[in-house]
Amino acid sequence: MEKDNYSLNMLTGKKYLIPTEGDRKNIDNFLSNHKGKKVIVVQGLGFVGAVMTLICSNALTEEYAVIGVDLANSNTYWKIASINEGVFPIVASDPKIEEFFKKTKSKRNLFATYDNYAYSVADVIIVDINLDVLKNSDFSKKLINYDVNLEPFKKGIEAIGDNCKENVLILVETTVPPGTCEKVVYPLIKECLLSRNLSIDKFKLGHSYERVMPGPNYIDSIQNFYRVYSGIDEKSAIAVEIFLKTIISIKEYPLTRLGNTNATEMAKVLENSYRAMNIAFMVEWSRFAELAEVNLYEVVNAIKKRPTHSNMMLPGIGVGGYCLTKDPLLASWAKQNLFNSKLPLKQSETGVQINDKMPLFAFNYLKEIFKESLSGKKVLILGVSYRSDVADTRYTPVEPFFDYLDSEGAEVSVYDPYVDVWEEKGIEVSSDLNTLLKEDIDILAFCTNHNEFINNDTLIQTISKIDNLFIFDTIGVLNQKEIDILKQNHIVKVVGRGDIK
Amino acid sequence: MEKDNYSLNMLTGKKYLIPTEGDRKNIDNFLSNHKGKKVIVVQGLGFVGAVMTLICSNALTEEYAVIGVDLANSNTYWKIASINEGVFPIVASDPKIEEFFKKTKSKRNLFATYDNYAYSVADVIIVDINLDVLKNSDFSKKLINYDVNLEPFKKGIEAIGDNCKENVLILVETTVPPGTCEKVVYPLIKECLLSRNLSIDKFKLGHSYERVMPGPNYIDSIQNFYRVYSGIDEKSAIAVEIFLKTIISIKEYPLTRLGNTNATEMAKVLENSYRAMNIAFMVEWSRFAELAEVNLYEVVNAIKKRPTHSNMMLPGIGVGGYCLTKDPLLASWAKQNLFNSKLPLKQSETGVQINDKMPLFAFNYLKEIFKESLSGKKVLILGVSYRSDVADTRYTPVEPFFDYLDSEGAEVSVYDPYVDVWEEKGIEVSSDLNTLLKEDIDILAFCTNHNEFINNDTLIQTISKIDNLFIFDTIGVLNQKEIDILKQNHIVKVVGRGDIK
Repeated sequence: MEKDNYSLNMLTGKKYLIPTEGDRKNIDNFLSNHKGKKVIVVQGLGFVGAVMTLICSNALTEEYAVIGVDLANSNTYWKIASINEGVFPIVASDPKIEEFFKKTKSKRNLFATYDNYAYSVADVIIVDINLDVLKNSDFSKKLINYDVNLEPFKKGIEAIGDNCKENVLILVETTVPPGTCEKVVYPLIKECLLSRNLSIDKFKLGHSYERVMPGPNYIDSIQNFYRVYSGIDEKSAIAVEIFLKTIISIKEYPLTRLGNTNATEMAKVLENSYRAMNIAFMVEWSRFAELAEVNLYEVVNAIKKRPTHSNMMLPGIGVGGYCLTKDPLLASWAKQNLFNSKLPLKQSETGVQINDKMPLFAFNYLKEIFKESLSGKKVLILGVSYRSDVADTRYTPVEPFFDYLDSEGAEVSVYDPYVDVWEEKGIEVSSDLNTLLKEDIDILAFCTNHNEFINNDTLIQTISKIDNLFIFDTIGVLNQKEIDILKQNHIVKVVGRGDIK
Repeated sequence: MEKDNYSLNMLTGKKYLIPTEGDRKNIDNFLSNHKGKKVIVVQGLGFVGAVMTLICSNALTEEYAVIGVDLANSNTYWKIASINEGVFPIVASDPKIEEFFKKTKSKRNLFATYDNYAYSVADVIIVDINLDVLKNSDFSKKLINYDVNLEPFKKGIEAIGDNCKENVLILVETTVPPGTCEKVVYPLIKECLLSRNLSIDKFKLGHSYERVMPGPNYIDSIQNFYRVYSGIDEKSAIAVEIFLKTIISIKEYPLTRLGNTNATEMAKVLENSYRAMNIAFMVEWSRFAELAEVNLYEVVNAIKKRPTHSNMMLPGIGVGGYCLTKDPLLASWAKQNLFNSKLPLKQSETGVQINDKMPLFAFNYLKEIFKESLSGKKVLILGVSYRSDVADTRYTPVEPFFDYLDSEGAEVSVYDPYVDVWEEKGIEVSSDLNTLLKEDIDILAFCTNHNEFINNDTLIQTISKIDNLFIFDTIGVLNQKEIDILKQNHIVKVVGRGDIK
């Protein structure tokens, strides 16, 4: 098989030939077993879409026939095949994922396909495809330098418009530049329907965003959480509300309707910009604390006792994940490109830039300590995911840190209790920490604050017995007692504390 | 009496000749009635110091003799006289102020003076004097342009060092540039003691900050609230802790000791920078929301349901008060001047600058609407204090807004239910809103979100009956129903909403 002809199942290792023919027969066959049920199509089977198929196939107050759609290419086709074979394509620590998928399988009300024919049978289409920001390679070093390419997203919307029923409900969940539903999706769908000689007055278009958190509360972060929604017009807003009520626990988490689709689109990117911004804010204070020999973790934790300051962030190695690294840029791009403003959201842009620079700070610090002799040094990185206790490595700040060290000739090994394969780097991650710690290490760097690393006496004892180690805690996992123990044999430096001076 | 010879009691209107002789006899006389009690001296009788005298004279677990000290000049002497005459020099809506002062008077354990002799009898000296930032006049318009003049603060510290006992406890509560206790106060006190041939090993120096909120919870914001503290050395930290335990409700609000005085000093300015920064962050989003016809209040309130986002701020007219307008600058100044960093706290500085620009935005908006014909326009401003339901007008953003309008020739009248005299502007503030509303007004501007303005049907009815008004809500006090009512007769524009477009 040629590389482009097949798609590799990242979980089972099985290879699938990418189909070249349509899938209509299988879709019709699936639907023949679910007559009378409304058909929900989820577009995109990534971190959000895949889980949305489970939420919809296990809706709270209605029985749906659910079809998941993604592209038939080498990156995504295996997810389609995997779902149909009964292996859920995403690994998560949330036991509800397996539980929900089991129920789905016993009900046989989920089918996955690559055929746009699916849109033609849909009563509701949920858009969960990506919309990416392209950062130029010098983004973190120089001026703000990024772009948003709407084309792949527009292609996805066109696939819907070219096939959908004229009275379909299209619910966009993708994080989009504010203004997208009104200025991009709405005219595009109308154009498609007109070219098909269909009515343009009957379709409903809405926007609502999930707040999905891959991790132990994956399902709950969608089903049991507050949600805002909006419609392009009144009938759309009502249709969205009626649909969401069937899948969300609205009794505990009432829905909030906002005035227009710009508002919900803005809410999502504002949420994430707020966090990105507050992380960036803390970066400068970390440098100040290091100078003033202040333990910033201690200071922040004291301040956070005030409810008005409870969202204050802690020092760290940077920001990762799919959202916080790009959403402030989506927003600023929209302000300038969809609303013709000459002014960017400067603070939000700068926030992303500062955060993207943090791994470089950590690397430069090591470089200065080791006076250009990082080459050949053995570095063990503890934690590669961007967030504690999840397997998600998308845009993890540990990646540039790893790359900088690697390019300097350091021999870097990585350990993460949650990650078996570091997809983005294409390397296997060891889960045998004890063996790694027995090897000859020069530098031990804590990079993710996984629970396993916190208050772990055995780990501290093991590390303290190694000879002559430089311990670099980039995210404050070590407490004072542990630092005192480790300092007996090692040099210990912690980001955001005087130790690093 | 010449202007410099007397001091005017802002509350009673009484004039006092400023004394030219010492006050030692009265201090000794006061102390002769409190033999065996520890003597607490509070330096500075402003918003914090005055209330600290009440907290100390009504300490929870000990009976102190308390002396309040301030300067004998026209601005401050009246406070000294007023306390000794039985009129507390600060008006606040907190009933506990009056209650505490009544108890203090019946115990006769508080005396106020201007004589530095007081420091010589003190067991504990609490430093509550100001430390100000000087912003150049073009601060908000051009580049960051400010300075910190430590001299007045150092003079206050010298007055202590020149008089204090060698084993005194000096507790600095002033918000200072981080590093001040270690690099300024400590060497200064040592120098003074050395020149007096006293031991420099016995005095204790600590830092702890209050989180005082002038308003309905004035007393509680000191006595019943979390507090961090630190000492310049171990014995100092212990002494501070022992003292604080006698005045703070530590059972409900345990004390937090931080590693060094830099840490507590940093905690205070970090707290306030966090808020200032987050307000500034929202400014850019307000402009975006206005463009996109989004109601940002609605959006933010929906987002704030997430505990991780509960500190998100709302749009407004700017930032006021003594702390948020300067503390980020104190911090950035300290980083550069006390710790020799070449890099400022850029985001914190920019935050203050953005906030300081907001009243100008509000003014420019009006100017554009009225096309340079603001001259002669009658403007009624509702609310002048910087915060809802307090009388505090220090650095209120309404002041520059008022000044801009005034300089443009508008006839500006002001109403505030809490403020009788707008001290900084030297004007009386009407408390008769009905009469003001009967006058011929062109522009009505809501500038403080006092409770009185919120959901006030009578007010809305009265305003809606006026002819042809331009209503400018700079802080979102109006809800949608009220806006709809007012729009029947008036033009209504709200900052942070599409209305303003």
